[in-house]
Amino acid sequence: VEKLLEQLKTIQAEVSDLDAVANLLDWDQQTYMPAGAAEGRGYHLATIQRLSHERRTSPEVGRLLEQLEPLAAGLDPDSEAACLVRLAQRDFHKRTRIPPAMVAEAAQLISAAFQAWQQARSENNFALFQPYMERVVDWRRRYADLFAPYDHIYDPLLDDYEPGMKTREVQAIFDDLRPRQVALIQKVAARPMPDDAFLHQYFEPQKQWDFAARVITAFGYDWRHGRIDKAAHPFSISFGVDDVRLTTRVLPDFLNTCMFGTFHESGHGMYDQGIPLELNRSLLGNPASYAIHESQSRLWENLVGRSLPFWEHFYSDLQRTFPAQLGGVELRAFYHGINRVKPSFIRVEADEATYNLHIMLRMELEIALVEGSLAVADLPEAWNARMQDYLGLTPPNDAQGVLQDVHWSNNYMGYFAAYALGNLISAQLWERITADLPGLPEQIRQGQFDELLGWLRRNVHAQASRYEPQALVRRITGSGIDAGPYMRYLEGKYGEIYGL
Amino acid sequence: VEKLLEQLKTIQAEVSDLDAVANLLDWDQQTYMPAGAAEGRGYHLATIQRLSHERRTSPEVGRLLEQLEPLAAGLDPDSEAACLVRLAQRDFHKRTRIPPAMVAEAAQLISAAFQAWQQARSENNFALFQPYMERVVDWRRRYADLFAPYDHIYDPLLDDYEPGMKTREVQAIFDDLRPRQVALIQKVAARPMPDDAFLHQYFEPQKQWDFAARVITAFGYDWRHGRIDKAAHPFSISFGVDDVRLTTRVLPDFLNTCMFGTFHESGHGMYDQGIPLELNRSLLGNPASYAIHESQSRLWENLVGRSLPFWEHFYSDLQRTFPAQLGGVELRAFYHGINRVKPSFIRVEADEATYNLHIMLRMELEIALVEGSLAVADLPEAWNARMQDYLGLTPPNDAQGVLQDVHWSNNYMGYFAAYALGNLISAQLWERITADLPGLPEQIRQGQFDELLGWLRRNVHAQASRYEPQALVRRITGSGIDAGPYMRYLEGKYGEIYGL
Repeated sequence: VEKLLEQLKTIQAEVSDLDAVANLLDWDQQTYMPAGAAEGRGYHLATIQRLSHERRTSPEVGRLLEQLEPLAAGLDPDSEAACLVRLAQRDFHKRTRIPPAMVAEAAQLISAAFQAWQQARSENNFALFQPYMERVVDWRRRYADLFAPYDHIYDPLLDDYEPGMKTREVQAIFDDLRPRQVALIQKVAARPMPDDAFLHQYFEPQKQWDFAARVITAFGYDWRHGRIDKAAHPFSISFGVDDVRLTTRVLPDFLNTCMFGTFHESGHGMYDQGIPLELNRSLLGNPASYAIHESQSRLWENLVGRSLPFWEHFYSDLQRTFPAQLGGVELRAFYHGINRVKPSFIRVEADEATYNLHIMLRMELEIALVEGSLAVADLPEAWNARMQDYLGLTPPNDAQGVLQDVHWSNNYMGYFAAYALGNLISAQLWERITADLPGLPEQIRQGQFDELLGWLRRNVHAQASRYEPQALVRRITGSGIDAGPYMRYLEGKYGEIYGL
Repeated sequence: VEKLLEQLKTIQAEVSDLDAVANLLDWDQQTYMPAGAAEGRGYHLATIQRLSHERRTSPEVGRLLEQLEPLAAGLDPDSEAACLVRLAQRDFHKRTRIPPAMVAEAAQLISAAFQAWQQARSENNFALFQPYMERVVDWRRRYADLFAPYDHIYDPLLDDYEPGMKTREVQAIFDDLRPRQVALIQKVAARPMPDDAFLHQYFEPQKQWDFAARVITAFGYDWRHGRIDKAAHPFSISFGVDDVRLTTRVLPDFLNTCMFGTFHESGHGMYDQGIPLELNRSLLGNPASYAIHESQSRLWENLVGRSLPFWEHFYSDLQRTFPAQLGGVELRAFYHGINRVKPSFIRVEADEATYNLHIMLRMELEIALVEGSLAVADLPEAWNARMQDYLGLTPPNDAQGVLQDVHWSNNYMGYFAAYALGNLISAQLWERITADLPGLPEQIRQGQFDELLGWLRRNVHAQASRYEPQALVRRITGSGIDAGPYMRYLEGKYGEIYGL
């Protein structure tokens, strides 16, 4: 077994290097690449991705797995060897099932669909994107069928992001969450809305940047193995545990974007930095899932960064940084302002109380599309109807409605759930954390985050991809993914702010 | 033939992508990579370089070449197909001749030798580096022997950088050049030295940077397909013709470093940007040689950037940029200051009149080492003796002498010649250019460089690697590489400045 495992690990290390290099190509493209270099970059990425695909689906891997599968069956299923074989099997079987012609078709489709989406959005005309969206849905239906039989046609799509999770499970969670979240928003809407005009002033970009950097330094983001750069669409990206980079953007006239965006990305980054070094360059050294990843970013952004104890420490720094803008704004008023609830059209600008509704809407529509119960032609109408149901709003146009997200034009389907599940998980973890670390609120009030980060390192980061997301949440919290803690968190927080 | 060529081109495109990606890894490492990411980066680079090596030495390439060689023999030797086959043969045969064990040995040697060199230099103690230098010389001798028979053991080393050039040819050129250059320096030394103290003041770094950027924009460096960043050891690097980046460094208290360094790198960059798009991702789309590359950087840095017509245009801009520092310095005084000749210990700080002597010294020592006529233990003494002969100086210590360059610790031997040959070629091209473009001095006086760049594009850049360097120089100038034009250039310029 040892020798076979070593061979498997050697291949995984090579694949991991190729994937890291693809990530660097992506990072560079979004940060520093000259405008005229896109075509060449396309070739570089395609070559690296093809080599990675060829290597991980090579007959050699197939032979190794055939020999290892029976041997691994006798091992403790939580042992490193058993996990490694399981993850390699999953990767191999998923990837070898996709015909090369479908991979090539997807590449062409994405390129055309992305262009059409950009045009459709700028011209506010869904009809321009409709034929490409139909091809995306068709491709995704055929993709799902490669993995038949399934309980639900959406399962194979979801599984790419949340290994092992079923559509029915997510639907059950969301069915529990949705009415409670709608009810909360309605209660909040009946109360006077806090003022947040002070957030919309001129804030010198370099000072915004420096403040955000001071905060994430205190969080524990490791600059020796990371850095931060500007990007139009901020993201965090890993080239291995020793090089995990963040990006952010700064709006000169709005304080939240750089600040909370940077806190958010630092949560992603600290997760990737927390993967144990000995798992680096191995399939075991990946994050558990997109939802688990999002739970980390949302925990630092919201549970910490939008909390009162956090601002009890950092608000004086922020006021010193921007005395003219915030000198006259009291801590409580600031805290209420950054936590204002206001239903809006755009997902990425949504507050904590409304965000999940944007996500549930998208997942429901995706499911209806791949089930065939909703035609792409009817998608804008279905979108707008749900916006009215959940948020009481009707988008004035498709650019602020069905055309707002890039995901579908990139042939992504099954991804959105992670955003809402991540929120739920962050609150589940938080209940566990505050039980385990009774001194935490006081530590946060002192700007001390090392116990919190240590807890996340041990309980979440160190597990890497050893467990599927549901299993990991259950191991940590004793329960599967569940809407209860998140609703308790929202109701407690907004109950206090809005005096519900 | 067409079908076989297509197969060969497909492989070359993949190899070219991998090499571009390796260059991006290198660029990132020298510009933005976090300090703690070196180990992971080492893995990434090693994997990409191994895949590139495997692909270009694969049995498939061997079979294609066996079939193509007899077919190519019947083609016009200057045709694209014939050149492509010739270059692929050369690459394949060079690379397959090196045993994998020697490649691995070199990687380990470089890592150890580089560390030892750093320590030896900082402690000023050649003895610490000596055993590693002995291993470098030994490795290089064995490397040369892989390519036996040869006229001279140094030929295979030189050939890696200057395809087709022989040691005896370079020696003959240098034997002609050396006494003339030594005589010039001695004549200059007898004259009063111009003042250049005004170059050593505080110059605001951002303004230095912006001035250099304005100049290379006027030269014709293409920012749509390029950018410039800071690096400790400036370089230019290509990821394909649509992405060619420069780096520079800025010393706050010395004007020359950023300015002439940026001009220099832009010459390298414009060469790589000038490779025809249709040769991108092909072995034919490489530069002709290191010496040809250096001819481009030195032409823009020196023949243009240290010339009087250039400063007749740009000096008013520079004075406006730094009025306090340069407002009282006349154009002539400035021109004399930036062209001051002063023998010095350090190659990279040498002026035009002394630079080549630093190079000849290194190449002579390298030849003696691989011939076996000089022991590594005697290298510092041999270095110092030659410094005294050529420049009339004896280094006060090894850090300012034999330990100053990084090249040997990187297992490079045969590289240095390109620096001096590049100078000679730049002057040969310049004589041809000024004959072809009689209006050029006046254009330069007007800050117009498009005819000059157009000439270089057509005559040098567009040829890419179709010809070996000697053949290319002969095609353009009618003569092989020759010291005459460079000496005429130096004697004319310094004759005028120093009133010789």
